[in-house]
Amino acid sequence: MVIAKARAVDGPDKSFREAEIERRDLDKHDVLIEIKYAGICHSDIHTAHGEWGEVKYPLVPGHEIAGFVTEVGSEVTKYKAGDRVGVGCMVGSCGECKNCRDGEEQYCLEGNIPTYAGVDKYGELTQGGYSTHIVVEEDFVLRIPDNIELDAAAPLLCAGITTFSPLNHWNAGPGKKVAVVGMGGLGHMAVKIAHAMGAEVTVLSRTLNKKEDGLEFGAKAYHATSDPETFEKLAGTFDLIINTVSAKIDISAYLSLLTLDGAMVNVGAPAEPLEVNVFSLIGHRRSFAGSLIGGIRETQEMLDFCGEHGIVPSIEVISADYIDEAYERVLGSDVKYRFVIDTSTI
Amino acid sequence: MVIAKARAVDGPDKSFREAEIERRDLDKHDVLIEIKYAGICHSDIHTAHGEWGEVKYPLVPGHEIAGFVTEVGSEVTKYKAGDRVGVGCMVGSCGECKNCRDGEEQYCLEGNIPTYAGVDKYGELTQGGYSTHIVVEEDFVLRIPDNIELDAAAPLLCAGITTFSPLNHWNAGPGKKVAVVGMGGLGHMAVKIAHAMGAEVTVLSRTLNKKEDGLEFGAKAYHATSDPETFEKLAGTFDLIINTVSAKIDISAYLSLLTLDGAMVNVGAPAEPLEVNVFSLIGHRRSFAGSLIGGIRETQEMLDFCGEHGIVPSIEVISADYIDEAYERVLGSDVKYRFVIDTSTI
Repeated sequence: MVIAKARAVDGPDKSFREAEIERRDLDKHDVLIEIKYAGICHSDIHTAHGEWGEVKYPLVPGHEIAGFVTEVGSEVTKYKAGDRVGVGCMVGSCGECKNCRDGEEQYCLEGNIPTYAGVDKYGELTQGGYSTHIVVEEDFVLRIPDNIELDAAAPLLCAGITTFSPLNHWNAGPGKKVAVVGMGGLGHMAVKIAHAMGAEVTVLSRTLNKKEDGLEFGAKAYHATSDPETFEKLAGTFDLIINTVSAKIDISAYLSLLTLDGAMVNVGAPAEPLEVNVFSLIGHRRSFAGSLIGGIRETQEMLDFCGEHGIVPSIEVISADYIDEAYERVLGSDVKYRFVIDTSTI
Repeated sequence: MVIAKARAVDGPDKSFREAEIERRDLDKHDVLIEIKYAGICHSDIHTAHGEWGEVKYPLVPGHEIAGFVTEVGSEVTKYKAGDRVGVGCMVGSCGECKNCRDGEEQYCLEGNIPTYAGVDKYGELTQGGYSTHIVVEEDFVLRIPDNIELDAAAPLLCAGITTFSPLNHWNAGPGKKVAVVGMGGLGHMAVKIAHAMGAEVTVLSRTLNKKEDGLEFGAKAYHATSDPETFEKLAGTFDLIINTVSAKIDISAYLSLLTLDGAMVNVGAPAEPLEVNVFSLIGHRRSFAGSLIGGIRETQEMLDFCGEHGIVPSIEVISADYIDEAYERVLGSDVKYRFVIDTSTI
């Protein structure tokens, strides 16, 4: 067993504190990873604050993990000590249901095992990446391309795949017009990836504050959604809208921006239901859809794609003592565009 | 000009009365049709009652039209006197926009010209099929297969294509599980068509009152949605749900019945927005979509498909004096499954 250092939170209103957690002895298919960097995802905050259902504290969040393999179980074939690897939002699934067999483990019919705040197959609570080490089955470990630095790689494991997967599934590419709603951690990755896929990208953000960045990331246009004219001007324009905003927004207004057979895909979800005017769907055979991270095979594809196209998130590396302040800044949309914890400071 | 007999309504609360309407002289691409039968669609009732926006009265509804060609314009090539033809929900479109060029005239970017309560290219109010004659451009006239009686053919022009098109677009067929919500005029056609396409069909209706009919039409299973167990039992079952109910229903409960990548497609729309729990979309990459009738090419495909598979709606032929009572019965769900007016009684 490895005793890992970690940063844990003890309740919805508590600050992070130093902690020690036990990582299990390696089973034959397990990999021990020395974590170098862990991204801070908005989901971490929702979970730490108990906003997504009951949580067992102390909680160690973190599902954007990058580091090195330091030890492998007796039957591990895919990885060896020294490999540069990552772990994303899940560390297990049933492996037997139709969705798992199809490589869509995120949609496992038994429920996938989340990297933190889940229960693993040994009945133990999972603890995430704000930590120095983690033990994960090799099938849920990803290989990080050589040309991507580990700090920049971390956010790809959630923000990267969460946006890559729907762009891929709904065929973003040359000749397609894609809008990205929101320019945060997910949104800025969606822009970079959609652009690299060859689509024509437009950002729809509340204000024009981040316009310069958006254009630099590859967007061809950038519009403020606080301006009602935006919705008139762009009516019927987009083949695909990736909505990275979890807040309650006027979905029907965004649906009106889709062309025939266009889809608006939510990758975040507000706690309250959203109101949909069905006429805006029927009028142009539009779809309102949702997408959850991506499967393991597709996550590797995404990493390889990012390696090939030189795509990395724009990050701000922080020390572990800064997590609480980083959370505040994420909530205030004051981050360009992802905080990544240097776990050597844990 | 032809003076056609018709049945018209003068206001939201008025009864139908006898009327005479003018049908324009044939332009070079026009076809004069002697209407034999006209189906009664729920949309007729919404429109006649002024529930779908302002209407200019007197109004002659009817967009499920079947009859014979009696005369053709000088440059008509597709039809000749004596041909058995139909007219559906639209009688024109711009013909030039991308959607029209793609054969999706129902989604014309300029707006298609509805068969009644619309304005045609001459600036005249369109009047529908509760009438003895109609003049329509040949491009919006459909050919009725020889083995389909004209009375049974009429409802295919709206109820048939409205259900055929989404079943076709979302690939209903062998190996696919399709649920049909509602067993009215549209629902019963959806069951027959989806079954003929080779899909495994389940009906979801408020009660089991029409179960025997549903199974006879080709459904393999029939469940009451008033029974909460239905939603538990069938969770994650269907590839496609065709929702023919225009009333406000609990969309999120129905979405939970979809499998990974499943779609729920509304072909009717309630006036109020529907609430969608986004988690039910994200959890299995589901879509909530809408579909509007079908294009002219696809409508002909549908008619030919129905001819080939011997599919006809189940109808009750009525005389024109019975329209008001028929409306009452449609509103009370007391129709098996479509009223069709014998226009010789107009």
